[in-house]
Amino acid sequence: MNALAPQLEHPKHPVLVRALPTTTPRRRMLAVGLIGPGRVGSALLTQLRAAQTRLSESGLELKLCGVAASKRMWLDCDDPDLNRRCDRAQIWRPADLRQFARHVLGDDGRHALLIDCSANDEVAAHYAGWLAEGVHVVTPNKLAGSGPLERWQAIRAASHAGARFRYEATVCAGLPVVQTLRDLLDTGDELLAVDGMFSGTLAWLCNRHDGGRPFSALVREAHALGYTEPDPRDDLSGLDVARKLVILAREAGWALSLDDVDVQSLVPAELAALDADAFMARLDELDAPMAAQLAIARAEGGVLRHVASLDRDGRASVKLAVLPASHPFAHTRLTDNVVQFTTRRYHDNPLLVQGPGAGPEVTAAGVFGDLLRIAESLEARA
Amino acid sequence: MNALAPQLEHPKHPVLVRALPTTTPRRRMLAVGLIGPGRVGSALLTQLRAAQTRLSESGLELKLCGVAASKRMWLDCDDPDLNRRCDRAQIWRPADLRQFARHVLGDDGRHALLIDCSANDEVAAHYAGWLAEGVHVVTPNKLAGSGPLERWQAIRAASHAGARFRYEATVCAGLPVVQTLRDLLDTGDELLAVDGMFSGTLAWLCNRHDGGRPFSALVREAHALGYTEPDPRDDLSGLDVARKLVILAREAGWALSLDDVDVQSLVPAELAALDADAFMARLDELDAPMAAQLAIARAEGGVLRHVASLDRDGRASVKLAVLPASHPFAHTRLTDNVVQFTTRRYHDNPLLVQGPGAGPEVTAAGVFGDLLRIAESLEARA
Repeated sequence: MNALAPQLEHPKHPVLVRALPTTTPRRRMLAVGLIGPGRVGSALLTQLRAAQTRLSESGLELKLCGVAASKRMWLDCDDPDLNRRCDRAQIWRPADLRQFARHVLGDDGRHALLIDCSANDEVAAHYAGWLAEGVHVVTPNKLAGSGPLERWQAIRAASHAGARFRYEATVCAGLPVVQTLRDLLDTGDELLAVDGMFSGTLAWLCNRHDGGRPFSALVREAHALGYTEPDPRDDLSGLDVARKLVILAREAGWALSLDDVDVQSLVPAELAALDADAFMARLDELDAPMAAQLAIARAEGGVLRHVASLDRDGRASVKLAVLPASHPFAHTRLTDNVVQFTTRRYHDNPLLVQGPGAGPEVTAAGVFGDLLRIAESLEARA
Repeated sequence: MNALAPQLEHPKHPVLVRALPTTTPRRRMLAVGLIGPGRVGSALLTQLRAAQTRLSESGLELKLCGVAASKRMWLDCDDPDLNRRCDRAQIWRPADLRQFARHVLGDDGRHALLIDCSANDEVAAHYAGWLAEGVHVVTPNKLAGSGPLERWQAIRAASHAGARFRYEATVCAGLPVVQTLRDLLDTGDELLAVDGMFSGTLAWLCNRHDGGRPFSALVREAHALGYTEPDPRDDLSGLDVARKLVILAREAGWALSLDDVDVQSLVPAELAALDADAFMARLDELDAPMAAQLAIARAEGGVLRHVASLDRDGRASVKLAVLPASHPFAHTRLTDNVVQFTTRRYHDNPLLVQGPGAGPEVTAAGVFGDLLRIAESLEARA
């Protein structure tokens, strides 16, 4: 639907005649600065490099002007040749986000975008200022969207001045969730409820929790497989899921904060304050309560799932729920995320999006998609 | 994520402080002409009217310049006051699509959009010409996307010149399907397969076809409920589903045509040529073959579903399939559509979108979403 026609080879059907522009496509240049060159940031850079020729043919020149890590950063020196050889031309200096943003913005009126792939609250504190200066911001970092309400409102207000703030990858990575909600609302639909499973880890644990093995053994397996955070309590607490719920609520215009979400942690209170090793050593204390929850679900003929729910009466919760075996959430694939929007138009049958909602590549793709959407809206500049 | 902040009331949580622009939003005017004021077109006009204030606050002025039906059309007289009272100021004249397009385009360099809500192939024949003249085109009409390949290629080539062609609502109405595929490809993913149930009618029939009642009784019930087309063969033939598959294949850059799709019609050959009444009178001739299919599915321990499939080896089919009871398609809600993308990134667990995929309101919302996406990309003009 836009100019980035894919170039897939197809054994039987030849690739469509490449639709060459009959006039020069609108040329746009976008200066990009990446903050947080970790797993997601690196995957994004790989994706952007792979797409560069295609983007250029469609009229979009991306210019990577710098990368900032927590302690150091490099800035390109604005020489196109050097920029192309940026790996060799790196000059690392102490990180300074104000200087970094100023450099990416430049002084020639170009379009500029900062991509925050850190998980750092200090970076989020800069968004409103950057947007007010006309710098677009894209991030998979949930801290702005689910952080203090005042800061969020300041970011939204700043983004209304022209620069755009996008954060599709904050909820279920590359799955089309935030944009889908945005489109529903922008076309005049009304959100009645959101229900979902926003944690692949918790989905996997609930799917596998069938009474055959103690819950702690499943947690240990998930930990060994890399499905959990280094400290599994970061998943089991439900806090990360609650953040996603807050982001969706605010997207719908509801002034929800993290404190408003009724979060049921799977971590018993007496294990919450331990250090990570001590927690892992006492993991089997999760077994009895989880077995009891499973027994309740089975007595009701249902399944146990970890569900985030939000309705327009202000109720927001993240908890274990007993669902009927016929419920769509009962049949998701092991680590799948799922989001279900109930709206005025999608009332009897909600709209549902399902699939993997974590991982560097799909998260980076969600960020990349946001970048493309911003690029579509750029006016031609030299 | 854009300026069209929703204004939902929320009993507990006050609506977010409205983020008023601190600078004037970029002002864009878009002249719109609607072709085909049927159920979808009328629903769209209602949605656009309801959104007008919100759009205007975000800097987008929509100006409805005319409506064309198959035989007659009206054009506004370019007087803003009259335009606001267009219901009363209608002057119907014989339909002339060239004149209509010229009128909407105007001669003052404004942005112009034609929305084709007809189901008319003659309208689709105009798209390439309109796009070449700089008129954006949005449609839920499947005839261009699934029609002759040469015409499709001409449309794509014309749209590369600057004017944009969007058609989200051609596949599963308002569900985010075409854009989701577009985003996957544009961010560098590779499509490996599409599988789906693209007909709410056939999904309902398969879901209800449990051996309790003859298949013909279910078709009669669906017909009476308005779930089928006036002639149920338009659903049972699978042709409409095949058109959607062709649209998605071409979106992925594969040169598929309707003839390439292996379509299994549920209508026995001897009933295909009858007139509608004669067909309905002989509907029970569907019962034996459908009962046999169900018996096969049950013998295999599976469920019978009507599935569209496409893979990158060029195989495209629309047919009854026996799926394992654990398959996601086995658990869809009665009339739900479902689309599953298997890609390089979404390989083990595909990306799935599910929900109602037909109806005037959700189809119109899909069209409206396309309009908004085009509006986002418009440069400011007087």
